[in-house]
Amino acid sequence: MQANDPKTLLEKSIPIVAKMGIKVVEFGKNHAKLKLPFEGNANHIDIVYAGSLFTLGELAGGAIFHASFDNLRYYPVVKKVEITFKRMALTDVTVEVGLSEEKVAQINQTAEARGKADFDLSLELKDNSGEVCCLVDGVWQIRKLPETGGK
Amino acid sequence: MQANDPKTLLEKSIPIVAKMGIKVVEFGKNHAKLKLPFEGNANHIDIVYAGSLFTLGELAGGAIFHASFDNLRYYPVVKKVEITFKRMALTDVTVEVGLSEEKVAQINQTAEARGKADFDLSLELKDNSGEVCCLVDGVWQIRKLPETGGK
Repeated sequence: MQANDPKTLLEKSIPIVAKMGIKVVEFGKNHAKLKLPFEGNANHIDIVYAGSLFTLGELAGGAIFHASFDNLRYYPVVKKVEITFKRMALTDVTVEVGLSEEKVAQINQTAEARGKADFDLSLELKDNSGEVCCLVDGVWQIRKLPETGGK
Repeated sequence: MQANDPKTLLEKSIPIVAKMGIKVVEFGKNHAKLKLPFEGNANHIDIVYAGSLFTLGELAGGAIFHASFDNLRYYPVVKKVEITFKRMALTDVTVEVGLSEEKVAQINQTAEARGKADFDLSLELKDNSGEVCCLVDGVWQIRKLPETGGK
């Protein structure tokens, strides 16, 4: 595995994410699945800590960026995220993220024309029995890298 | 300093928060100020990582709980948090949180009657030149501890 492949970037390049131990367990075109381990992310009453749950959702935005867009032409920015805590998480927690081919084409078209384009994601964070513990709704943006004429 | 004093609880009892190194720099009645160090919380492009910024805001809810309510009768829960990223943070980041005496009385009254009460906070996360880098709006709840007749 190369140092700059998406899985390594996502898991290792942000020190606090590496400390949480979030792993990319599926990664393919326009799709990714990430897992936050319970171990190391529990709070003082032994449930998964809110800040780690948020990070799992936030990192899903980075994962779908790498799975869907050209990281030699664009970089991702997170603009806004809302997280709703539905139930306590007592196990590892996973999130799946995907974008349709049509949506990716639309975002690419806007970014090509304007130098940047927003995309939103609505995500479900699930415990290992499949129960939804958190809903994450956010807006991310892709921006052209300066070398390629970004505005 | 005792192991169960609020400052120690906030800084040390959640392992991932301890790893971020968030410190309680002011703590008094109905008021607290927390600081997230840049060191250890930068991302791969050397700006403060979104997950650490969220955690600073989230922990402010815990801090104001301890600064305003009786932690022998109640415990705090976070229900929903929205974070808006306004500008990159390139330094340590602080947040101040406070509740008015009137608001605390109102929340206590509701919790006494119903076993729980919501409270919302609108917070500004600031870099060390005082610029707002993030807005955090959230809803937390205090709940009666089971031993005191919580529902």
